[in-house]
Amino acid sequence: MALPTSSQLSDRQARVRRRLDVLNLDAFVVTSPVNIRYLSNHVGSSGIFVLTRDGAHLLVDSRYSEAVRMLQQTASACPALVVRHVDDSYEDALLQCLGEIGTNNVGFEATQLSVASYDAWRRKADGIGLSVGFHATERIVEEARLIKDAYEIATLREAAARLTPVAASAFEAVAAGGSERAVAAVLEAALRRAGYERPSFDTIVASGPNSALPHHRAGDRKLSSGDLVVLDFGGVLDGYCSDLTRTVSIGPPSPESRRLYTAVYDAQRAAIESICPGVESVTVDAAARSILQERGLGEAFGHGTGHGLGLDVHEEPRISRPRADIPSVRLEPGMVVTIEPGAYLPGFGGVRIEDDVLVTETGYEVLTAVPREFRSL
Amino acid sequence: MALPTSSQLSDRQARVRRRLDVLNLDAFVVTSPVNIRYLSNHVGSSGIFVLTRDGAHLLVDSRYSEAVRMLQQTASACPALVVRHVDDSYEDALLQCLGEIGTNNVGFEATQLSVASYDAWRRKADGIGLSVGFHATERIVEEARLIKDAYEIATLREAAARLTPVAASAFEAVAAGGSERAVAAVLEAALRRAGYERPSFDTIVASGPNSALPHHRAGDRKLSSGDLVVLDFGGVLDGYCSDLTRTVSIGPPSPESRRLYTAVYDAQRAAIESICPGVESVTVDAAARSILQERGLGEAFGHGTGHGLGLDVHEEPRISRPRADIPSVRLEPGMVVTIEPGAYLPGFGGVRIEDDVLVTETGYEVLTAVPREFRSL
Repeated sequence: MALPTSSQLSDRQARVRRRLDVLNLDAFVVTSPVNIRYLSNHVGSSGIFVLTRDGAHLLVDSRYSEAVRMLQQTASACPALVVRHVDDSYEDALLQCLGEIGTNNVGFEATQLSVASYDAWRRKADGIGLSVGFHATERIVEEARLIKDAYEIATLREAAARLTPVAASAFEAVAAGGSERAVAAVLEAALRRAGYERPSFDTIVASGPNSALPHHRAGDRKLSSGDLVVLDFGGVLDGYCSDLTRTVSIGPPSPESRRLYTAVYDAQRAAIESICPGVESVTVDAAARSILQERGLGEAFGHGTGHGLGLDVHEEPRISRPRADIPSVRLEPGMVVTIEPGAYLPGFGGVRIEDDVLVTETGYEVLTAVPREFRSL
Repeated sequence: MALPTSSQLSDRQARVRRRLDVLNLDAFVVTSPVNIRYLSNHVGSSGIFVLTRDGAHLLVDSRYSEAVRMLQQTASACPALVVRHVDDSYEDALLQCLGEIGTNNVGFEATQLSVASYDAWRRKADGIGLSVGFHATERIVEEARLIKDAYEIATLREAAARLTPVAASAFEAVAAGGSERAVAAVLEAALRRAGYERPSFDTIVASGPNSALPHHRAGDRKLSSGDLVVLDFGGVLDGYCSDLTRTVSIGPPSPESRRLYTAVYDAQRAAIESICPGVESVTVDAAARSILQERGLGEAFGHGTGHGLGLDVHEEPRISRPRADIPSVRLEPGMVVTIEPGAYLPGFGGVRIEDDVLVTETGYEVLTAVPREFRSL
């Protein structure tokens, strides 16, 4: 797929500028690589993006100069952009840029900037006698990213759809046996074949007792009969993440495995069916959690029900219990979230089922298309 | 390979405690996941580690509780560890922990902690009336990590050695033709087959004009006759990174391609041969850079000559030109660095050659073993 167009970037920047107006900021320094990509189409591990009232500046070092020059000649060029080449220090280049813009109200991303970098900005500004007021902001670009635009929805839909053949390869690999690592290798090769640029995260193949560890990755353990196997994987397509979990049984499942699976399956379905515009994220979480609690599995479900999906594999909104540090969010059309309840019994094993869901004007659309029924291999 | 032993962890912690003594800190809050792993063997995307004068605390949420419980029953247990389970907020759990330790001199990792998190710590400490002095520190664990211990050297040596069959697969894939992405897929499958848990970074397959972009990844471009192809890849083994670059020609190279290759080859050899205990990192960089400058390619070499390699794929020491923000480092036995000069001609193409090098008591040991001669496929 092509990159977002210049006009799509303009719309994104306009959303951010509206927030800057409210906060009375003349310039906004973006240091998160993902947020820089979202606003400018520049992809890189380094770079600083400065959005002003009527323009933008991108600071990049020589590794990225040529890529940015090429980007700016396309229909996906970042609008009204001044490219500034950084020779030595990003900090020096930033302060020079801010000096030339001549503003005193500069926002920065407080969740993205380290204490050490911030101290260096301040020290260097004082050193060159630059009077600049840095204002800590949070979630400005993240909030813009909450509601996906048409480009993003199309990309996320395609990213989710392409997991179907990948899951088929994973099931074949589990049936063929071998180690967790061998299954992960097959899975990741299938991700590449499906056209993803890389896995969204470290592929999880957790078998037998390892399946009770929600964040086990893939180790040397050999799959064996009677195992529950949690397969949690996804791929990045044009920067956007997909994320799917299926749990399978090797050979016929025990009654306890079946009980666990049915509980998680019902919990996931209830959470998905609760999704519609206006519903609170804590309500979606409660839909899953109450079912697991009814089945005596409340303690076995320690994590949240889901998370937003986009340029980051874990982004806002979080679908979780009411928590002091995670505000409940009212779901809106254009949000994309995972729904992934699980139940884990230490020493025995665990089950997690996860799909990617778009909030629509009328309800929801499940973007992932792999059947959710319990599968014995 | 097994994990580092409890006694190896003790040695690492002792090195850090010596720095804390100098800084008069009673407790040190580690928030970098990689540094937490280095000091405790806990692997996870979340967690806070607090090192005290005579013990340690690990704060983890339910996703990691079982894994930590299992770890602590092995010979690789973190010594004198109190495990604290985090229900809701890591910040609340941290302040409770610090309150119980009862100390007023607490160091934190200023390059790893965001301004927002720091502000939240301060605010919450005030909120519960906890008198605690937070002191910004930099590079405490990073400095300990500069000199690799026996476990790390053995792991890095093995991680580098296993790239040889991976490179062979990559060369075969280039010879077979197809897109950059197809070559990357073969390469990453070979990394898994070789036993790596994941790529060290996004695999780079940059062909033709793309090879002039040092940080191009792998796209849809089809390899074609006369291309230079930069292959930059590596795998993570037991947490430790390897990193190799080879540049090949498709069909016989043009005289200009050959000239570029020879210059970079000579520059790399000179830099490697300059490595010995006591040499300054800027001197190693100059050994490569001066050769490229002599050949009229000074402008074509915009990045540094290399970087440290360990739990991070880019860590200290940096092998670069003298720069205000990167202090020159005197190399010592036990350091492991990449040496990777390059030359890039926009529109034409580029060459980079990279190997992993251990500084020894008497000089150096090249850990990667793929021949460096110019290869036509």
